[in-house]
Amino acid sequence: MKRFAIQGAYLILSPHEILKDKYLIIEGTKISDITDKLPKDITEVLGGPHDIVMPGLINTHTHAAMSLFRGFADDLPLMTWLNEKIFPAEAKFVDEEFVYMGTLLAAWEMVRSGTTAFCDGYFFEDHVAKAAKEVGIRVWLGEGILDFPTPYIKDPSTTIEAVRAHIERWKNDQLVKTTVFPHATYTCAPKLLQKAYALAEEYDLIYQIHLSETAGEVSQVKEKHYKSPVEHLDSLGCLSERTLAAHCVALSEHDIEILAKRGVSVAHNAESNMKLASGIAPIPEMLEAGINISIGTDGCASNNNLDMIGEISTVAKLHKVAKMDATVIDAPTALSFATINGAKALRFDGGTLHKGAPADVVVLDGSAPNMVPVHNPVSSVVYSANGPNVKDVVINGKVIVKNAKATTIDEEAMLKEWRKIEKKLNHSLI
Amino acid sequence: MKRFAIQGAYLILSPHEILKDKYLIIEGTKISDITDKLPKDITEVLGGPHDIVMPGLINTHTHAAMSLFRGFADDLPLMTWLNEKIFPAEAKFVDEEFVYMGTLLAAWEMVRSGTTAFCDGYFFEDHVAKAAKEVGIRVWLGEGILDFPTPYIKDPSTTIEAVRAHIERWKNDQLVKTTVFPHATYTCAPKLLQKAYALAEEYDLIYQIHLSETAGEVSQVKEKHYKSPVEHLDSLGCLSERTLAAHCVALSEHDIEILAKRGVSVAHNAESNMKLASGIAPIPEMLEAGINISIGTDGCASNNNLDMIGEISTVAKLHKVAKMDATVIDAPTALSFATINGAKALRFDGGTLHKGAPADVVVLDGSAPNMVPVHNPVSSVVYSANGPNVKDVVINGKVIVKNAKATTIDEEAMLKEWRKIEKKLNHSLI
Repeated sequence: MKRFAIQGAYLILSPHEILKDKYLIIEGTKISDITDKLPKDITEVLGGPHDIVMPGLINTHTHAAMSLFRGFADDLPLMTWLNEKIFPAEAKFVDEEFVYMGTLLAAWEMVRSGTTAFCDGYFFEDHVAKAAKEVGIRVWLGEGILDFPTPYIKDPSTTIEAVRAHIERWKNDQLVKTTVFPHATYTCAPKLLQKAYALAEEYDLIYQIHLSETAGEVSQVKEKHYKSPVEHLDSLGCLSERTLAAHCVALSEHDIEILAKRGVSVAHNAESNMKLASGIAPIPEMLEAGINISIGTDGCASNNNLDMIGEISTVAKLHKVAKMDATVIDAPTALSFATINGAKALRFDGGTLHKGAPADVVVLDGSAPNMVPVHNPVSSVVYSANGPNVKDVVINGKVIVKNAKATTIDEEAMLKEWRKIEKKLNHSLI
Repeated sequence: MKRFAIQGAYLILSPHEILKDKYLIIEGTKISDITDKLPKDITEVLGGPHDIVMPGLINTHTHAAMSLFRGFADDLPLMTWLNEKIFPAEAKFVDEEFVYMGTLLAAWEMVRSGTTAFCDGYFFEDHVAKAAKEVGIRVWLGEGILDFPTPYIKDPSTTIEAVRAHIERWKNDQLVKTTVFPHATYTCAPKLLQKAYALAEEYDLIYQIHLSETAGEVSQVKEKHYKSPVEHLDSLGCLSERTLAAHCVALSEHDIEILAKRGVSVAHNAESNMKLASGIAPIPEMLEAGINISIGTDGCASNNNLDMIGEISTVAKLHKVAKMDATVIDAPTALSFATINGAKALRFDGGTLHKGAPADVVVLDGSAPNMVPVHNPVSSVVYSANGPNVKDVVINGKVIVKNAKATTIDEEAMLKEWRKIEKKLNHSLI
């Protein structure tokens, strides 16, 4: 088995366990040891004496292929943005090739900025898997389930069977896992939500859904079902520890109680919620209630990047000012959201650098101007760092980024392909 | 005179004037032309066919030397942070060498992330100037004026004369300008505020001051002077177009009216205000009143980096969610804050790439993963980019950063020096 080491001035095993001047030893796909000195038989060493080594970041909610829509519609009211820009563009452009090329671009950006796993939700998810595997990033797929036809599933009466077939295709993959992804309570009828949940139970999968993203959504669902989206989903029996709810912005106290009681995990998308003026999710209240909080970037049409380090920093600062209390969500808490809590949300045994954990590791350049000096490495990651400070990335024991270059894709050749798509989209969209 | 070109897929002359596929021609210290083709006599070309070329960013409020305190005190209530951490650390460590080394570090970080000018406020400002000149960044100095002794001015009765002497020393410098910097209305008696203002008038300089940073400050000043800090400063005759007020978080409608009427410029420090839980400055209201809004990062003890691109992005998103309106502060407005408005605040003729403007230019790598594709270059800068996307930086016609390396400092040699300080500080602080 291949064996190599990663040297760090600091090893952040988890946000509250930091070791100084160590070597992390990787063997096969796992972290096998942590040593003071470099074992004599090891010749390959990543990192260096000034770098910060930490668990790979886990993005629990995104729509990777939307990277190709980055920056084509901003500063618009939510409904104008969705109905006049995003939906028409998706109807016009989203096909297998678009999803494959967009996910490749997204996966390139993600690994280059320290993300080692992401939970996706879009269409043609087999092509998301194909792109993710090529780049070497872990993915949890979510083929979009809606009441109406999707770019992938033309006949809604075949939805569950189409998703079942998709799940079957990826049953034995090491990097690719599937989820069941009904879009939202306002786009899926109660029966569909329940059928999807039964499918998730049958295959023991995550059930991911957009939930209470805006006050408007809550009103709409209340008008139809006389319940909040959370109450509605709970009454259908679709909330449990397998449920991963994205956004959760417009929640009542009762909603928070329900989410806590059911053991639901939340994907907090702070920057998307800010940019689309959806609101500020009550994260401190959810934490207080014991809910597992993870972080998502959302798609690039609403953020507009996939930089988890930037997102962590925003999360830590946003809730301080929202609560007018500088002690709210301290640096270790924010970093937990993006690592161990993300792993928990996806029922994945990673998110730390403990011995025996999957070797998903990120090295941050400790000699970048914004990273000097280091008084507290967790603070450096949360408040000082940015995506491009990531120097090396290991996923499942494989070196995916080395010296800020992706090893698994030909960046220059791919750029030419993305330029062609950029040109085509520019001509049509603007 | 030296003549060279910068090629861009997009030239952002100003946030609403964008040219496609051009060459920016620089001659001496100025932008001399914009051409479709590369002039035959020019052999040196920065940028490239996919890059975004824009005006250098202007940071109108920081305390550069505090870069050395990056990350040593976070997640604390404001007064604990200030009284138990920052003030004791400053008393113990801040001397000429500290300021020089800290400003070198800050200037390195600033130029590497696209900042070409900054307005500083600290102590031993002659050493800020020395460091800024070595790196080649424009600076507006602000020697701290307070009622009590400072690390630089031991005897407060000599303050105005000491600052006058400092101003005289930098009267004829091209890159270094001075300002008059009374710290705040709660640390300077009315007479001192007025004497400082008279000095600013005498030398025709910017008068910069921390103003209404928190509700606590407003209460304190009201208790003593029966006026808000803005009203107080206005009653002393210290508000005019030469006044640059930092923070302006806790403002009444009447305060906003006064600031607008007097033509005061504001330095908005969104991330610092978030991290210290000071509040959200009423920027949309100030804009509506016609106030010139610029952007500052504040010092690294409260942010914790000097990345203006990150700050612009936060500003654009924060006010959207604060107002629950996605159309508030669109991308061009946010970019204006950090360029042309910053120039106006400092009474500097830069901030655009128009012919004849000072050659302060930034090139962003259009082939970085988070920058592909470009549908709208201003959106790409505001919502997708981050500091390290900056490839090349020109200040006053001189190439200061080339291919993401500072040309004016020996990064490796300096890192060794900063490590020594890091070690000394770590031993003493933690």
